[in-house]
Amino acid sequence: MNNGLSLYKKELKMMDESTICAISTSPGVGAIAVIRLSGNDAVAIAEQVFQSPKNDKKLTDQKPNTLHFGKIVCKDEVLDEVVVALFKAPHSFTGEDIVEISCHGSVYIQQKILEILVEKGARLALPGEFTQRAFLNGKMDLSQAEAVADVIASSNAAAHKLALNQMRGGFSKEINDLRDQLLHFTAMVELELDFSEEDVEFADRTQLRNLTVKIEALLRKLKDSFRLGNAIKNGIPVAIVGETNVGKSTLLNVLLNEDKAIVSEIHGTTRDVIEDVVNIHGTAFRFFDTAGLRETDDQIENLGITRTYHKLEQASIVLLVVDTMNPYPIVSERINNIRQRLTADQKLIIVANKIDTGLRETIRQLKMMDITDDEKLVFVAAKQKQNLEELVGLMLHSVNIGALAQEDVIVTNARHYEILKNAHEAILRVLNGLDNRITGDFLAQDIRECLIYLGEITGEITTHEVLGHIFKNFCIGK
Amino acid sequence: MNNGLSLYKKELKMMDESTICAISTSPGVGAIAVIRLSGNDAVAIAEQVFQSPKNDKKLTDQKPNTLHFGKIVCKDEVLDEVVVALFKAPHSFTGEDIVEISCHGSVYIQQKILEILVEKGARLALPGEFTQRAFLNGKMDLSQAEAVADVIASSNAAAHKLALNQMRGGFSKEINDLRDQLLHFTAMVELELDFSEEDVEFADRTQLRNLTVKIEALLRKLKDSFRLGNAIKNGIPVAIVGETNVGKSTLLNVLLNEDKAIVSEIHGTTRDVIEDVVNIHGTAFRFFDTAGLRETDDQIENLGITRTYHKLEQASIVLLVVDTMNPYPIVSERINNIRQRLTADQKLIIVANKIDTGLRETIRQLKMMDITDDEKLVFVAAKQKQNLEELVGLMLHSVNIGALAQEDVIVTNARHYEILKNAHEAILRVLNGLDNRITGDFLAQDIRECLIYLGEITGEITTHEVLGHIFKNFCIGK
Repeated sequence: MNNGLSLYKKELKMMDESTICAISTSPGVGAIAVIRLSGNDAVAIAEQVFQSPKNDKKLTDQKPNTLHFGKIVCKDEVLDEVVVALFKAPHSFTGEDIVEISCHGSVYIQQKILEILVEKGARLALPGEFTQRAFLNGKMDLSQAEAVADVIASSNAAAHKLALNQMRGGFSKEINDLRDQLLHFTAMVELELDFSEEDVEFADRTQLRNLTVKIEALLRKLKDSFRLGNAIKNGIPVAIVGETNVGKSTLLNVLLNEDKAIVSEIHGTTRDVIEDVVNIHGTAFRFFDTAGLRETDDQIENLGITRTYHKLEQASIVLLVVDTMNPYPIVSERINNIRQRLTADQKLIIVANKIDTGLRETIRQLKMMDITDDEKLVFVAAKQKQNLEELVGLMLHSVNIGALAQEDVIVTNARHYEILKNAHEAILRVLNGLDNRITGDFLAQDIRECLIYLGEITGEITTHEVLGHIFKNFCIGK
Repeated sequence: MNNGLSLYKKELKMMDESTICAISTSPGVGAIAVIRLSGNDAVAIAEQVFQSPKNDKKLTDQKPNTLHFGKIVCKDEVLDEVVVALFKAPHSFTGEDIVEISCHGSVYIQQKILEILVEKGARLALPGEFTQRAFLNGKMDLSQAEAVADVIASSNAAAHKLALNQMRGGFSKEINDLRDQLLHFTAMVELELDFSEEDVEFADRTQLRNLTVKIEALLRKLKDSFRLGNAIKNGIPVAIVGETNVGKSTLLNVLLNEDKAIVSEIHGTTRDVIEDVVNIHGTAFRFFDTAGLRETDDQIENLGITRTYHKLEQASIVLLVVDTMNPYPIVSERINNIRQRLTADQKLIIVANKIDTGLRETIRQLKMMDITDDEKLVFVAAKQKQNLEELVGLMLHSVNIGALAQEDVIVTNARHYEILKNAHEAILRVLNGLDNRITGDFLAQDIRECLIYLGEITGEITTHEVLGHIFKNFCIGK
């Protein structure tokens, strides 16, 4: 992993030898709080404010990975009784010496200890600076470092699983394997350039083509996984669509267990698109309630309908609500209308509502209706909360996150997605070049480009600007 | 400290041998969070969910006061990468085995780890239960345990200092010294009762009287310190009083740096008592703006004036605002009016306002006015923020918390205050009895009563009910 490119990391690291500190636990009052100190002088700075019970113990003499009870003393006054945890470089989160001070969790104590540490020579850490140092010190690559923020922000089981997997290196491994294989071929192709007058081929073109095909497929898979990855991270987008007055808002309310959307008997009530995220069995769904799809002259309502179609495109799951109190031909027409607007990777769940008061004939014909593999049909009475478990089960089954193995690689990061798109385009050019028998120098250039993109994901190739952008969104203390 | 009375503690402890767990850091998302596990099975329970990087390390084999990096694993899935801190009984906060798990600070991970620990046999801790166990295991006495909550809740330097001092045992020591001395004399007096027919005096009555006088003085000092202690904890009560329209609300606003009170030119605007706490150089002041003291027929306003006088009684510092635009006789009359209403331990600061537009003669005469040692006089222009530093300086000087030595014993706890009041009454009865030469059995009873009260402070004598009441106000995780 440490090729010449990581020289940049060393430069960045050398630019800042300061020892940084921050409150690492959630802000506010708690039973305890943890203040973290990282850098060459971490132990020396802590030493100046820490006193063991008998004042006979020096932190600098202690072994790494040990805990020490004592007092924080400032100008001969005891500020708090604390436990200090010692970690020594390189065996720490940042790869530097780390001291973690567990103090009583009053805001006053937390602030005061920070103040004292700064007084003794530490500097307040920037957001994500501890993780950035972990990256610069080679403790993790960039995609792993980015995942740290996602792990902390995850609020549901599925998003947590993906983020943790990425933090633990699952994603990086796949990328690095690809890079290694490509590197081998670039070397070969570039060697050919040195012998260009002799017209030799060190890189077997058939083998190279096979590898390129394999890489293209992998990059495409990764790139395409972003749709699901992003959905899991931010909530699977679910559009609730259907005629006006079929019970869309009622259904949404029941699913949300609260009264966010206005439910009324007047056609066209829900003019705006309402969004809400709800956790169902560990998976987040982002629901849009939408304006009813009714022919209307009301300009504002028409605007709402335009938005409905727009939202429809963004949905992974479309819940089409139909009213079984309507005759089958009307219901059937609505279903076909929506079917025509869906893309191949969207799942359609037809929700036949009001079965308690519905027409028997409509229900009978719906049951006999042909549905494709990508479609599901469920009969409910939303108002009476009847059969909603089946609907929820179908939704969970549609995304089937439970079946994701821990090692499945799914891209959740927009930065990675952009780079993967570029890398994929570059590898397609390589493939195209091979098929059109372009010369080695052009081939080498396309492969190099692809290599650079892949390096940008793991941080082998990076710039100060990119790093700054990545870490500024972290919370302070991590 | 361990006489027969602490048997109760052992009983309470035996009632519950369970291992408890809680999130000990502030709730919400942070870089890291700490989950605490305490009890006989703490290490065994942690062992079931913890895996070292090579899965070759058992927590049970590790030394106390050490840190261990690894994973939390649940049903073969990695939940998080964590650092585990081990403390072994009796050398821990609770006096039991403690495992602290530092995990990534997402709410999802925190909750999930708690769930797993409960699944493996731990039970969710009640508020303050860790500290309660520390008390039951003799790691601290009751007054120290109570101070833990105060340390965590302290939001200013002065309150923090008092709470920390109490937590570190400063208060208990004084109480225990008194108890020991009294115990000695009860023993002597009770011995006399065994020889009652022989009319001997083992307890020298002069010595006993001298001690009783000393104890009475100490108890009185402690009891009286509550006023200051409580003030420091909740903010020094400052009443701003004065005629209507002299600029009381303006002064308060400037001191608060915001617009909580309504300022207007209409007499009698501030009918209600507004309270606000502001930290000035590490000391909290609790300000009451009050209705102007004006003769009026308005019933609601009269109610406000009654409240003003009531609030006046509760104030440690009274800021009497007078308008230098008024002739001196009027100003002087107001000052004397307030002076008559103050008690000996209230500090009066006369704030001569509007000096930018005031009458020269009024200002001249005010400067020549006789003031007592408990009074201060300051000239300001509140609206122009002129000379407010001097006023703030006088207020700080009035409470003089800076001069409190770390070892000064100040009672801040209402429970202690009630007990001290009772103990003081009992010791006064002892003193009275000695002076009236009552018999040994009555004397012994009064001394015993005093002993019991003092024991209730440190928890030598306590009941489940008292404990429940004390710890229920703690935060969970401490």
